[in-house]
Amino acid sequence: MSNTNAAQSPVSVIGLGLMGQALAAAFIKGGHPTTVWNRTASKADELVASGATLADSVESAVKASPLVIVCVSDYAAVHELLDPLEESLKGRVLVNLTTGTSSQARETAEWAARRDGLYLDGAIMAIPPDIATDAAVLLYSGPKALYEQHEETLKKLGPVGTIYLDEDHGLSALYDLSLLGIMWGILNGFLHGAALLGTAKVKATTFAPLANTMINVVTEYVTAYAPQIDDGSYPAGDATVTVHQEAMEHLAEESETLGVNSELPRFFKALADRAAAEGHAGSSYAALIEQFRKPSA
Amino acid sequence: MSNTNAAQSPVSVIGLGLMGQALAAAFIKGGHPTTVWNRTASKADELVASGATLADSVESAVKASPLVIVCVSDYAAVHELLDPLEESLKGRVLVNLTTGTSSQARETAEWAARRDGLYLDGAIMAIPPDIATDAAVLLYSGPKALYEQHEETLKKLGPVGTIYLDEDHGLSALYDLSLLGIMWGILNGFLHGAALLGTAKVKATTFAPLANTMINVVTEYVTAYAPQIDDGSYPAGDATVTVHQEAMEHLAEESETLGVNSELPRFFKALADRAAAEGHAGSSYAALIEQFRKPSA
Repeated sequence: MSNTNAAQSPVSVIGLGLMGQALAAAFIKGGHPTTVWNRTASKADELVASGATLADSVESAVKASPLVIVCVSDYAAVHELLDPLEESLKGRVLVNLTTGTSSQARETAEWAARRDGLYLDGAIMAIPPDIATDAAVLLYSGPKALYEQHEETLKKLGPVGTIYLDEDHGLSALYDLSLLGIMWGILNGFLHGAALLGTAKVKATTFAPLANTMINVVTEYVTAYAPQIDDGSYPAGDATVTVHQEAMEHLAEESETLGVNSELPRFFKALADRAAAEGHAGSSYAALIEQFRKPSA
Repeated sequence: MSNTNAAQSPVSVIGLGLMGQALAAAFIKGGHPTTVWNRTASKADELVASGATLADSVESAVKASPLVIVCVSDYAAVHELLDPLEESLKGRVLVNLTTGTSSQARETAEWAARRDGLYLDGAIMAIPPDIATDAAVLLYSGPKALYEQHEETLKKLGPVGTIYLDEDHGLSALYDLSLLGIMWGILNGFLHGAALLGTAKVKATTFAPLANTMINVVTEYVTAYAPQIDDGSYPAGDATVTVHQEAMEHLAEESETLGVNSELPRFFKALADRAAAEGHAGSSYAALIEQFRKPSA
């Protein structure tokens, strides 16, 4: 279903890793005149065959469109590519989908402002094949008016999952990293469980459906704990920190008995022990927020 | 909707903590003649008012029913209560829903066999208010014929979530602990993210819906990684371990810059670093299973 439309606004995409290629492909498919650039030009071959224009320099790519998407390895690469281009950035909208920290995003917003450039920072919570599908979640932060002006174009990347967060340019990075932390938490828990069950010859594919049932159940705990965190009060409607400590000890001992790595449950228990030692033995698990708020020793 | 029926088989419930009370209440509501016992008898008051019979000793509780459910603080408490009762256990079915390790479950199965008792081990993946609702997940392991004989009664505790796992008595405990590990992984990830976002005045209740969106997305990764674990081959269809390492470093640095605890991302990164050092830099995240399979140093 091609959606070619002369009225679609031109877009430039700088950086054609797997993700950059997926982004450019989505704009092409969405009918946007699309200009692309990559350090290794051959990465543009498929996109050019689909209708993209290959720019011969970063500067030509920037000048080709009022909306410039950059998705490279890190913020240092963003600056290396764009710092020399002060004049050509003026008045254009730069949307930076490169992964980084909130301070990098805020610094880049200041850098863009000094050049009279318009800046949105963004984060992609999706793998390249999900781009332009309903599974893609993309987060944006920066001036809301700027986001709204380009919302329709940006939605080509995530038709249902395009989310504007806040005027604070740092928030897309902060959400991005926070959500990745949850992802690693789930994956490590699943891998640890798969290792434990593997000692009893249970396959990971047998474990996965039950793991996913549990994962869905925990979304209810997240919903229940969030207001406790905001209130700073953690009544244990379900299990107390003490009950969690006991079960964590079981998980650690089970791992050690079975010759499976126990660092993960030992770390969980150390956190819960600290919460209990600070008076939260009878609180809900949400009380551990106070441990996460403290700088590492 | 009372379901009283003279044909419902008698059940005894030993241990009336919040969970034991919920279990007994579910049997009473399901129309089973229900006998209860607890060290502190007053915990039975509400149940007795609802129709339960209070036994004056553990032994009378055991003798009152062919099916005996025990749900106490730990396996040591199970043995303390039941070890003296050799004769009265003979021929009865003991269903142990106490939390413990797989070796405790297997040992208890051998202990029961020596007494000509019939034994199922079980694990409750639910909080007390969820018992008897569609949200309750209960896992059972031990002789399948025994489970099937009492399945209808056990389903009073979890109408849709009652799951038989395996003849190996240890598996309900192993699944239980493995699933709890996933739960803690999610909750810690959420709390860490809430602490990070809290530095930018984002409320946990604002973060929770997006966190839950992410949690649901990760179920797809679990499904995708499970066959890689079983195959021992980890092609990176999405992101490589290297990409994860870089993002983990961002999360750790972000935490340190914002004065938030960075132990969790530093631990994640240490695991990923080890996987990369062993040749999995270009593999999918599933390759970390090999780290979890190794005993802690």
